[in-house]
Amino acid sequence: MRIVLIGAGNLATNLAPALGSNHRVVQVWSRTEASAQALGHRLECPFTTELSQVVTDADIYIISVVDSALSDIARTLTEHISQDAIVAHTAGSMPMSVICHPNAGVFYPMQTFSRDKQVDFWDIPIFVEGHSPWANKVLMELAYDLSQSVYPLSSEDRRYLHVAAVFACNFANHCYDLSSRLLEAHGIPFSVMLPLIEETARKVHTLHPHDAQTGPAVRHDHNVMERHADMLADNPDMQALYRTMSQSIISAFASNDKPTNQ
Amino acid sequence: MRIVLIGAGNLATNLAPALGSNHRVVQVWSRTEASAQALGHRLECPFTTELSQVVTDADIYIISVVDSALSDIARTLTEHISQDAIVAHTAGSMPMSVICHPNAGVFYPMQTFSRDKQVDFWDIPIFVEGHSPWANKVLMELAYDLSQSVYPLSSEDRRYLHVAAVFACNFANHCYDLSSRLLEAHGIPFSVMLPLIEETARKVHTLHPHDAQTGPAVRHDHNVMERHADMLADNPDMQALYRTMSQSIISAFASNDKPTNQ
Repeated sequence: MRIVLIGAGNLATNLAPALGSNHRVVQVWSRTEASAQALGHRLECPFTTELSQVVTDADIYIISVVDSALSDIARTLTEHISQDAIVAHTAGSMPMSVICHPNAGVFYPMQTFSRDKQVDFWDIPIFVEGHSPWANKVLMELAYDLSQSVYPLSSEDRRYLHVAAVFACNFANHCYDLSSRLLEAHGIPFSVMLPLIEETARKVHTLHPHDAQTGPAVRHDHNVMERHADMLADNPDMQALYRTMSQSIISAFASNDKPTNQ
Repeated sequence: MRIVLIGAGNLATNLAPALGSNHRVVQVWSRTEASAQALGHRLECPFTTELSQVVTDADIYIISVVDSALSDIARTLTEHISQDAIVAHTAGSMPMSVICHPNAGVFYPMQTFSRDKQVDFWDIPIFVEGHSPWANKVLMELAYDLSQSVYPLSSEDRRYLHVAAVFACNFANHCYDLSSRLLEAHGIPFSVMLPLIEETARKVHTLHPHDAQTGPAVRHDHNVMERHADMLADNPDMQALYRTMSQSIISAFASNDKPTNQ
């Protein structure tokens, strides 16, 4: 497939080398000259900063830009490219409908990307949606060339996937951050927590997180919880979070096992 | 050193084989006959279920029992053993003072242990406290025989270490659990989240968790946060937690970088 990359950020930079020999990036667009040039040189392909200069006859256009720019860029792009092409964005939190094109689609690899560290796409789940059966088929095949875990997913369900990722990653990281502050305030380096953090993350590979839950809340150890809350009195935000979290754990175990969110 | 293990649970079972050739377990006590016998056979040493039958002349007594039983067991034990011996418990959340003995101590390896899976002690941080310089010296040396990361830590600071572990591990795991519910309610297997969970845990090995924070809250993306909260309307607990967490992230970044908990 002849692919045009719209956007030359972290995702595009990681995606391009993973495409392999079945596919060829024929052009790179970026609003920023330096980014367009850097990725163009890296892939040995033409680049441009003008959407009007984007080739009109590629097979797939992959738009990886910041959410706020996606709608405008998609509109300008779809005005002049072929109606037979496929135009997909890579944004986890944006609906497919933001692209108005008969072969619109979504191609969402769920991982944190950084420009400097090449990631192995093979382990990254890719979520695919196609407005037409053709877009769906081509994007699914492209995903299977890159990854061992590929899922068709509607825009509606992808919104929940995104919230789920906020819980599992952004919120988990904030728990690490609060932990680091408590430690550092008592002269203990955060690094002491790393083996336990790693084990906690590794455990849920083999055990459902519900079954892996430990700590005072799941044991209903109200003495310990009250002592902990008292120790956090200096920091009302952290104390409130401790209480809300503990209550949420207690609720999760008060109803039946593994309740759904309904 | 001649060591007696008081308690034959997960920690003792993992600790014993890690002691190496510098030390020898001379006896195992457990309230439960089967546990005492199992570990005694495994270590090829005598075992007993009677505290009164515990040998009185060992060098170190390591008490690894449930928190609620610790005080009583320590009292009975210290009544008849030598005043020159060292008596340490392994409980992260209990003060050293729960053991009334001139050479009382704490020997706390911070990790989740399970009986069936032998862990590598070398990577586990061990926190040591001694009531006497002698207890401190001997327990520090024992810790260094087992682990590359050993820290002297007072009972007071260890309480904060424990709260920090609740945040980084128990609460992080609950975030995984809530994530799994959201996913499963929309027909998405939790396993799709594992690469992102792993990367989030791995990232904080090289980046301070404060600097690793991503997501809508740290971006002040109130549109996304409100959309997410609306999507959780069916589950008021989860919605409350989403809001408290997001607010806590915003607060963490509103003040200066890496504020302490003071």
